[in-house]
Amino acid sequence: MKTRLLSQDMIKSLITMKDVVDVVEKTYHGMGEGTVINPAKVNLDLGETAEYPPYKGFMNAMPAFIGFEDIAGLKWAGGNLGMRPLMDLPYVSALLMLVDAPTLQFIGVMDSAHITNLRTGAQSAVASCYLTKKRNITLGLYGAGMQGHTQTMAFAERFTLNKVVVYDVFPAASEKYKADCAHLVKDGNIVIAKTPEEVCKDADIIICVTQSKDKYVKDEWIGSGQILFPMGSYQECEDKFIKNADKIIVDHIEQCMHRGALSGLHEKGELKEIDVYATIGEVVANKKSVVPVEESHERILCLPIGTGSMDVAVGGIVLERAKEKGVGGEYEFV
Amino acid sequence: MKTRLLSQDMIKSLITMKDVVDVVEKTYHGMGEGTVINPAKVNLDLGETAEYPPYKGFMNAMPAFIGFEDIAGLKWAGGNLGMRPLMDLPYVSALLMLVDAPTLQFIGVMDSAHITNLRTGAQSAVASCYLTKKRNITLGLYGAGMQGHTQTMAFAERFTLNKVVVYDVFPAASEKYKADCAHLVKDGNIVIAKTPEEVCKDADIIICVTQSKDKYVKDEWIGSGQILFPMGSYQECEDKFIKNADKIIVDHIEQCMHRGALSGLHEKGELKEIDVYATIGEVVANKKSVVPVEESHERILCLPIGTGSMDVAVGGIVLERAKEKGVGGEYEFV
Repeated sequence: MKTRLLSQDMIKSLITMKDVVDVVEKTYHGMGEGTVINPAKVNLDLGETAEYPPYKGFMNAMPAFIGFEDIAGLKWAGGNLGMRPLMDLPYVSALLMLVDAPTLQFIGVMDSAHITNLRTGAQSAVASCYLTKKRNITLGLYGAGMQGHTQTMAFAERFTLNKVVVYDVFPAASEKYKADCAHLVKDGNIVIAKTPEEVCKDADIIICVTQSKDKYVKDEWIGSGQILFPMGSYQECEDKFIKNADKIIVDHIEQCMHRGALSGLHEKGELKEIDVYATIGEVVANKKSVVPVEESHERILCLPIGTGSMDVAVGGIVLERAKEKGVGGEYEFV
Repeated sequence: MKTRLLSQDMIKSLITMKDVVDVVEKTYHGMGEGTVINPAKVNLDLGETAEYPPYKGFMNAMPAFIGFEDIAGLKWAGGNLGMRPLMDLPYVSALLMLVDAPTLQFIGVMDSAHITNLRTGAQSAVASCYLTKKRNITLGLYGAGMQGHTQTMAFAERFTLNKVVVYDVFPAASEKYKADCAHLVKDGNIVIAKTPEEVCKDADIIICVTQSKDKYVKDEWIGSGQILFPMGSYQECEDKFIKNADKIIVDHIEQCMHRGALSGLHEKGELKEIDVYATIGEVVANKKSVVPVEESHERILCLPIGTGSMDVAVGGIVLERAKEKGVGGEYEFV
């Protein structure tokens, strides 16, 4: 039995952000419907919070079964703020394994750092389609790095971006983002914010993709009818906003209690699973209804912190394409 | 960055059961000491107990960090009783990924079905060395399949096997086992038991390696000074023995509450984490003491149900050997 092997460069040549956005939508639908199975990820702490080992990093194991592809897979992905930046390596290191679900034969092993970046962008863009009917929007963006780029790419697939207002603690990152992403925004209308507050002002949708633990987004910055996506692993918005938001919608309830924006309040016992209004899957599969924000005037906190199912489903498409086109290496493990 | 790839055949040529027994002992020591980190495995149910999908299988994600090798790894392993036996494939399907812990670079991907089989045998042999001082023993064995073979191989590394009494529901399996393993037992003294009860009669150590859910080992069969290892994923011994055993010793407390012999009683609230006397790691690292059974006359239930750390640590040695000998394929995922 030969297992197909795919490199990051091959993956880049095999799928587009449009493909990823479509698969992510299908996967949310499956999660809502129960045909996509996604246990909570399991964290291996390599010094991210633990004292030992002192590597300032972690690895997350993220298995899933995808009904509409009949495959199961596991992404093992992590990052560190220790040796990787010193060696000029990207933050994320990730590999994805796929098995044929009925036989458990390993059909593919591939890089998944690129898939992680693409699907993370796609998650918020797809969720947004179900929270507002507007398709011409202003996007507020905290964090102009790789994830800032892919968020913009994904939103541009489903929305006309009239304007993007971006803030990054490194001004040079904002400048680079502006040059790289101008073609995705109407008339290249990207404004570099002078203060963090400015990002929220006219935005329909606000995305946070930073490593911050500073709760920098203030409750009073978010107006009625606005949607905030704090995508980081830590906490990017004030406790007050989490408590006051009209609806909290997440991709995976159990995971979101233990990582990202909600985990601090959950740990203190001030936020419980029951405070989550719905999962994105339930909304996409029409099991829970949400009135579009421009009608409800609600303030929505949406948290697609990332599920293995997205990586596995995207990997499944990549593998299919690779087989069709005869791309990739092969190895006989057994 | 090139990742080394290793097939099952290569792994077979690179390590022996002696190597595995030694690494397993070192890994238990690290677990007891805190330099080996092993989060509880996460299960993806593919119809083993769930109704959907209907594949009668599962995959377990088992990550770990090994301090004495400075690597982290994840084994993704499972089995099924659906398509795999129909296709004449072995029960276990498993792949192991290894990263250099400080940099998170993927240094190896290898088959790990063979490693799983070897380390599972080694786990009970190593644990036994700390529960009895006897080194000439009679072994009782339920299950004459692959795991029955590797258990015997592992015990033969650390003990003189005066006699093995084996029982299998398939008599042909016992016959094959007897032929295969005669060289591991003094004077080839392997007795095929006519009844399950016979296995326990004169045994110092009793090993269960079956797929049974029947609680077939009865409390009254186990005498004072005997050690029982129910290694299966389900339940092979009576509740009464679990409740009456003088000591329960496990490899991983959290895991053992949710899978294997203890899970049923745990679920009913009749057995708690506190009922476990020690972990094998604590015993090996001399953090908890155990009087040898031939002096204490205790009946011990020992449960090394399997941890990812064993696979990762063995994989680390395999990878080291492969590099030295220039064995294996290579692939550049990133």
